[in-house]
Amino acid sequence: MQDNSSPFKLAIIGFGAVGQGVARVVQSVPHLEVVAIADSKGVALTPDLEDVLARKRKGKSIANSDLTALDVIRTVDHDVVVEVTPTNIENGEPGLTHFREALKNKRNVVTSNKGPLVAAFGELTELARAQGVALRYEATVGGAMPIINLIRDTLAGTQVLGIRGVLNGTCNYILTRMAEEALEYDQVLSEAQDMGIAEADPTYDVAGIDTACKVVILANAFFNRQVTFADVNVIGIEQITQDALQLARQRGFMVKLIGDVQELTVAPKLIPLGHPLNVSGTLNAASILTDTAGEITVAGKGAGSIETASAILSDILSLMRERD
Amino acid sequence: MQDNSSPFKLAIIGFGAVGQGVARVVQSVPHLEVVAIADSKGVALTPDLEDVLARKRKGKSIANSDLTALDVIRTVDHDVVVEVTPTNIENGEPGLTHFREALKNKRNVVTSNKGPLVAAFGELTELARAQGVALRYEATVGGAMPIINLIRDTLAGTQVLGIRGVLNGTCNYILTRMAEEALEYDQVLSEAQDMGIAEADPTYDVAGIDTACKVVILANAFFNRQVTFADVNVIGIEQITQDALQLARQRGFMVKLIGDVQELTVAPKLIPLGHPLNVSGTLNAASILTDTAGEITVAGKGAGSIETASAILSDILSLMRERD
Repeated sequence: MQDNSSPFKLAIIGFGAVGQGVARVVQSVPHLEVVAIADSKGVALTPDLEDVLARKRKGKSIANSDLTALDVIRTVDHDVVVEVTPTNIENGEPGLTHFREALKNKRNVVTSNKGPLVAAFGELTELARAQGVALRYEATVGGAMPIINLIRDTLAGTQVLGIRGVLNGTCNYILTRMAEEALEYDQVLSEAQDMGIAEADPTYDVAGIDTACKVVILANAFFNRQVTFADVNVIGIEQITQDALQLARQRGFMVKLIGDVQELTVAPKLIPLGHPLNVSGTLNAASILTDTAGEITVAGKGAGSIETASAILSDILSLMRERD
Repeated sequence: MQDNSSPFKLAIIGFGAVGQGVARVVQSVPHLEVVAIADSKGVALTPDLEDVLARKRKGKSIANSDLTALDVIRTVDHDVVVEVTPTNIENGEPGLTHFREALKNKRNVVTSNKGPLVAAFGELTELARAQGVALRYEATVGGAMPIINLIRDTLAGTQVLGIRGVLNGTCNYILTRMAEEALEYDQVLSEAQDMGIAEADPTYDVAGIDTACKVVILANAFFNRQVTFADVNVIGIEQITQDALQLARQRGFMVKLIGDVQELTVAPKLIPLGHPLNVSGTLNAASILTDTAGEITVAGKGAGSIETASAILSDILSLMRERD
């Protein structure tokens, strides 16, 4: 336990949409101090947050030092590394190296980066445990939908028997519009790309890869598994036809891409109208089956830089409370 | 902070379905000890839980002492009063007296009893604060649906701008069956009564009174209000016709009895299909509008003795963690 009158110090590693969102939301929190921000081009030490946000917006460099992100993690005094570099599910880099160095240097890690957790969950949680620091990753699953902390804190007295969910907003948006407006897959995908809801290469989302990564993280976190992406049986939404959706709808069901954490599967499934998982648009939802509380479902915005930053902030605040 | 190797001691005041549920779920928790159980006829001191549950099942007295519930609260050493006597929204009694005595004697209170909170929320929370003990009431709203602790713990970093929800399982069951099976109100109510989902006198549920009590508790807890039942504008579900439900459905909506905490209203409202509040059957759901996390919805079983006991247990465990 440290002196709780000293500020709680963060380094933000990665300064894309989520990192900038974090820089915005932490400004309202007393006793929090951002000691460094690193993007792919350089490091701002003791940054003026408004100034670096303005520089970033204008495409200017934020760097005011010769340090690298790894230098910051190793040598600058801080409590928490907020690791928000882009997700790489091939090998987890550069996040994985940041995670390892942070934990080795006894820094807590808070992240929205799925890559390192999918690549090396067991190694990283064991390293955190051995070093006596925390690895918190609420923002990796479901953006602002607080599934991980809900299970860890609020449902602490129950045994979790299963988790399944609508974990990818892009897929859910496409399936919702196909069902409700009787449109074909290609047309909705193309519109979703125009709106920025789907990427130019949509494979990561529509092939179910993103959902599978979230299944891996939840399985390792709550079911004591040691699984990686290769262990998940994945079917995406590319083959779903308009006819199938309409037939389901007439019978009182919607088709949703469901990640099932217990089964380690990702596949389109029929969900009855009126079931809490039946959320529309880009929403995410997850149902947690418990021994004594029955099935609890939580739904919320699965993406968005401020929403994801909000999930990161909830992890940071929880670490601050544990310190005090 | 106490010595955390000593057991955490509970007195269960009220031994109906919920009290018995609590006696069941706490048996699996290490370092928890039930020092007394009181029902309306007497008190069992240092009870053997299996034995008192068996006695209750057979309709036998559980009493093994001459103490009253108030004697237990005042004189028996314990950390938490689990107050689960029947809800009385007229004057909150007998719960209100139990709450006051418990807090005055520096016992934490964990409860599923809405009556005292609707009657005297401000007085009780102020008394708890002054005495340095906790008043926890997750189980009063939505049974196993963890709305209160979700807001308090998991959403601690966000500002709550609004809360609205489907907060009464009986009403939701009736409206769901009316809509899905094209049945009239009287017929569904009668079947719900046969199934034990509605009371012989269903007024408390169908007139919106129960929902209004939950609105009062949430308004006082999260919006710094000092309101009581009389401050809520309440319309129940008794006047809803089959035609209205079918018309709504054709247009892509379901009719739900919605308690709006910000507005202090209870009324039937149109909820779009695909909105997370659109849960069917006896489920409850609540949407929490936040500044940075958007709208978060949680859904779960709103009633049931084990589910309610599970919510009580989550409060007890949270108090135990705070002690340690």
